[in-house]
Amino acid sequence: MNEQRAISRRRLLTSAGATGAAGLALGTPTGALAHAAATDDDGPALTALGSTAVPFHGTHQPGITTPMQAHGHLAAFDLAPGAGRREAAALMRRWSTLAAELMAGGTPETDTGVARDAGPASLTVTFGFGHHFFEATGLTDARPEALDPLPLFSADELDPERSDGDLWIQVGADDGLVAFHALRTLQRAGAETAVVRWHMKGFNRSPGATSRPMTTRNLMGQVDGTNNPKPSDDDFDQRVWVPSDGDPAWLAGGSYVVFRRIRMLLDAWETESLDEQERVIGRRKGNGAPLTGGDETTAVDLDAVDADGGAVIAADAHVRVTAPETNGGAAMLRRPFSYHDGFRADGAPDAGLLFLCWQADPRRAFVPVQRKLDRGDALSEYIRHEASALFAVPGGAAEGGYVGQALLEA
Amino acid sequence: MNEQRAISRRRLLTSAGATGAAGLALGTPTGALAHAAATDDDGPALTALGSTAVPFHGTHQPGITTPMQAHGHLAAFDLAPGAGRREAAALMRRWSTLAAELMAGGTPETDTGVARDAGPASLTVTFGFGHHFFEATGLTDARPEALDPLPLFSADELDPERSDGDLWIQVGADDGLVAFHALRTLQRAGAETAVVRWHMKGFNRSPGATSRPMTTRNLMGQVDGTNNPKPSDDDFDQRVWVPSDGDPAWLAGGSYVVFRRIRMLLDAWETESLDEQERVIGRRKGNGAPLTGGDETTAVDLDAVDADGGAVIAADAHVRVTAPETNGGAAMLRRPFSYHDGFRADGAPDAGLLFLCWQADPRRAFVPVQRKLDRGDALSEYIRHEASALFAVPGGAAEGGYVGQALLEA
Repeated sequence: MNEQRAISRRRLLTSAGATGAAGLALGTPTGALAHAAATDDDGPALTALGSTAVPFHGTHQPGITTPMQAHGHLAAFDLAPGAGRREAAALMRRWSTLAAELMAGGTPETDTGVARDAGPASLTVTFGFGHHFFEATGLTDARPEALDPLPLFSADELDPERSDGDLWIQVGADDGLVAFHALRTLQRAGAETAVVRWHMKGFNRSPGATSRPMTTRNLMGQVDGTNNPKPSDDDFDQRVWVPSDGDPAWLAGGSYVVFRRIRMLLDAWETESLDEQERVIGRRKGNGAPLTGGDETTAVDLDAVDADGGAVIAADAHVRVTAPETNGGAAMLRRPFSYHDGFRADGAPDAGLLFLCWQADPRRAFVPVQRKLDRGDALSEYIRHEASALFAVPGGAAEGGYVGQALLEA
Repeated sequence: MNEQRAISRRRLLTSAGATGAAGLALGTPTGALAHAAATDDDGPALTALGSTAVPFHGTHQPGITTPMQAHGHLAAFDLAPGAGRREAAALMRRWSTLAAELMAGGTPETDTGVARDAGPASLTVTFGFGHHFFEATGLTDARPEALDPLPLFSADELDPERSDGDLWIQVGADDGLVAFHALRTLQRAGAETAVVRWHMKGFNRSPGATSRPMTTRNLMGQVDGTNNPKPSDDDFDQRVWVPSDGDPAWLAGGSYVVFRRIRMLLDAWETESLDEQERVIGRRKGNGAPLTGGDETTAVDLDAVDADGGAVIAADAHVRVTAPETNGGAAMLRRPFSYHDGFRADGAPDAGLLFLCWQADPRRAFVPVQRKLDRGDALSEYIRHEASALFAVPGGAAEGGYVGQALLEA
């Protein structure tokens, strides 16, 4: 399921200031893509960070099972007044063409040049449709019930101006200029049809900055993502993708993404002792292992009791409340970015998680889990849900096609 | 002058998904620093991106001649009411100790864990003092005239709330979590003495994303930094550093940094033809070469005329107006970050350059050049200066000492 391929590894990393260390050729350079022509043998090496390209075309859209990138943009758009189904179709065709070209490291016509010289840097572009998109395009009959607005949760403090939207773009890349360039190119190309509703920026670890596999840390310092479904799991497809014989048919190979902007109350969190932090989560902060022992990947033993007969994992520990075993098997693929937008008037960081989770049906994944969290998660004292959105994310486009074609040309 | 050293290169980059490619040991692992212990031989490789450490102690502060990092934070602070010289000295000692520890990849006591598992990722922390710092600390006698407020320029549209400040921290790192963690750790440790006045975030290319040497591109797509003074230049020290026998003595080995938040009017810029963009700058967009020929590093021929006898480099071309030859030799070390803070109500990106330039005396560098730009720079039509600040940046701390000690303990 790993959709990445290293397309140009002509030269291996040589550290700035290190002597010599001539380039070692690993892998097979294809040389076919435009960005390869921009490399400069006299300059520093283009490493896998820059040279890795993710394919745009395929069964599923990119940016869902793609390894998390260092930079992310989330942008929601509303259709401009007067734009309907025809304009939306033209927009999705134009956006798909551009996304494919940018992800391959190419330079679209009338390009601004910002990404020139850089490799594709694992760029992905992912498109989604919100609830109101179907009214604006006269396609309400095709709208799945699973896209109905999420229920309000008691702890929600949502800002409608930073929530929802007709259209959604997720951009991820391991280079900040490549990511900016992709978003700006798409926004500019769609400006007559799609008006920016909200935009947020996030980040994750840079490749090569850590030797920790797969999981990352969030801004609370916790290992995050340990229990994520893995593409190699037997039930991964069933959990994440709308089946090819599913409903609606136009969404086959697609998914639903729930977005939540979750601010972390770091002043409060960082004041707690390590013991208390670990009790709240149910895992060791250092290595992410459950409080019931083992290492990060060891299953949590929810039944374990201590010498006094008390539960080792507290009743309200985050790991217990979110465990599939306690949620009728509900699980979703979490693929978040951290965010940090400066400091609030009280000095606390405006920082937290751009939580994104992917599932075949939010009514059997995010919603029941969040309902349970809303009732009794020890972590809720330290976080605030400030924005929310739900989008239907169509399957991937075939060569020559575009994302959403099965809906817009049905 | 390259202060970077690779401190742990036990294992070379292996691409995720590539088969095998066992670790090649290059260089000499020191193993002495705390972060090395956190590496995990079963995980992906920690590359030079993550393992490179920049020393905190030395003649000059880090983050000035250090190669530009992928992530940057600029934060200005005002001293809290009641805080004076003694509190400022304690703050600078605490901040210096923390900065040295973080830059070495260590984990300070009471650490939040956000950077755990990551290498130092070329983290740098740089401290500066603003004009009002000297009043707040009763040290106005020690304030250099070069720190007097910058003149207002006719095109300035400055926001005072995002300008100036008593204290300034620049954080740079090639990993976003490492950068966040450093800034948050410092802010938290200083919260009783220093109140955040403004904060901005920026980015540059990730190492390995491009093979272009030294220079980067800005969000207009232009090659930026070509004519920067280089540490190997004969007059570099004279241009950038306050001399050891200079005035004031406490600033020996230090520098002055001018900060300008420069928004780019990308909707207007991107509408211009390539020819017009190149005329405005005086360089080719593709490779950064002067319009008078050669490649990026070829000197601009300001006297060149075309077949009609007109100047090849227009009278108001940016490269002419900023050329040291036309500014009495004034030159400064530019070391900016790009920024992108979403989109404005009119749909234009709120994006541009966090311009930072370093010089021994702003009255002989930034000020005369900016005066000239203000009078007739073709680029000025496409940019807006929205915030401004000037800080005196002391020399580096010796082991056991702290930044600003010669001022605060004089």
